[in-house]
Amino acid sequence: MANSPSGESVISRVVRLVEAFDDGHRTMSVAALSRRSGLPVTTTYRLVDELLAEGLLEREANADVRIGTKLWELASRSSRMMGLREAALPFMEDVQSVVQHSTTLGILDSDEVLYIERIGSRESMVDITKVAGRLPVHGTSSGLVLLAHSPAAYQELFLSRPLQKFTDSTLTESSELRRHLAQIRQQGFAVMPGIIVPESSGIAVPVHGPSNAVIAALSVVVPRNEEDASSRVPVLMAAARGISRSLGWRGELKGALRQSNGRI
Amino acid sequence: MANSPSGESVISRVVRLVEAFDDGHRTMSVAALSRRSGLPVTTTYRLVDELLAEGLLEREANADVRIGTKLWELASRSSRMMGLREAALPFMEDVQSVVQHSTTLGILDSDEVLYIERIGSRESMVDITKVAGRLPVHGTSSGLVLLAHSPAAYQELFLSRPLQKFTDSTLTESSELRRHLAQIRQQGFAVMPGIIVPESSGIAVPVHGPSNAVIAALSVVVPRNEEDASSRVPVLMAAARGISRSLGWRGELKGALRQSNGRI
Repeated sequence: MANSPSGESVISRVVRLVEAFDDGHRTMSVAALSRRSGLPVTTTYRLVDELLAEGLLEREANADVRIGTKLWELASRSSRMMGLREAALPFMEDVQSVVQHSTTLGILDSDEVLYIERIGSRESMVDITKVAGRLPVHGTSSGLVLLAHSPAAYQELFLSRPLQKFTDSTLTESSELRRHLAQIRQQGFAVMPGIIVPESSGIAVPVHGPSNAVIAALSVVVPRNEEDASSRVPVLMAAARGISRSLGWRGELKGALRQSNGRI
Repeated sequence: MANSPSGESVISRVVRLVEAFDDGHRTMSVAALSRRSGLPVTTTYRLVDELLAEGLLEREANADVRIGTKLWELASRSSRMMGLREAALPFMEDVQSVVQHSTTLGILDSDEVLYIERIGSRESMVDITKVAGRLPVHGTSSGLVLLAHSPAAYQELFLSRPLQKFTDSTLTESSELRRHLAQIRQQGFAVMPGIIVPESSGIAVPVHGPSNAVIAALSVVVPRNEEDASSRVPVLMAAARGISRSLGWRGELKGALRQSNGRI
């Protein structure tokens, strides 16, 4: 949290300001923003004024600032996430209405799972995912599905790193993970009980893009020991095919071939 | 589309670059980005490099650029829209499952309706709303609900401007609109057939925030002459109360008082 090093670009300082906001800090004073971003107070005041003028920040009644509507709008209307989540949402509703637990859509981004959509069950108490939230790849069924379908070189790089053990069930040994990834590719889904918190299990399947590459994972988070994979996997698979198809996927034959060759 | 005037801040030039992307232009070459943003080519190249370095833009395989995951993530995780849409989504699913037509959540932003969530019906062909899309206030049932509950001074300012007539049914006369706004406040909903496109009708109800102010409008878009308001308005009202309650609203008595006093 040092002062901004001289020569840091305006853009990178703005990113630091915006990153200071999160779920627990949705509004704050400019002084707090300076503290949390590590930028000098005068720099912070000047940048906040510019960001307010552009609508990227907004001022609350008490003079605190928050992320502006404009930033959300700019980021939303044209990103590739929006196309994906729009295609996925109707199918996610179908899954949600049948499974009655949180349904999520995640992508692999910067070595983590980034959840780009989530339909929450009002009853579900076992789900730590949230929209625009991140979770570790090896701690989630979605992450393992995405990793299983990543290029072999990326998988090996990932498996070469030390991995945190979140629960007794978290897989951290590369040989064990490699075996699981092969199994996920072969069977077409992942069921992972309690790998990040003991009380919940994830079930995930791959979503294909037009080029047949796996671009996202569709998952449900259910209470542990209530996985009921035999009834839920087919629901997820049907929905994932629907999403893939509406994204322009026509890779059923290729998909079958890939599955039979799918070992690293 | 002139060159960037000297003295324009980096932030405002970045906004111009990002605004060059939209639904029809999700990826483009840096040269096209320069053209669409009106920024000089050299400036565009320099800013694009910085934005790529921060992950705010991403490069496609063919060297075109697109809005980056990071921008969406920064904007999403902390904005007030996310709290609202997270509260609303389960109730919107309930509406969608009963009404079987597109369900939207809109806010008033910069004199327009900004749709922050939409659950689309796969069958629905009559809905021009989209997430992060904007529509004119007087062309949508949501806009009229939001206007009806805006401060009187804002309403008068809005009604003093010339308003575009989109269809034969668009209300553009201030006296007529004022009458409709009063009616919307009194009855607690708006049913507007064909005011922006002839073939669709909007039905909208207000959503209250913790301070009892109307902060959003919940609506369904249905084929014209199939409004069926008597069955759909109660579904929308129940859902809007649910959303309001989960946002901390406890204003039932105040709501009733407001309704009986609700004239400008």
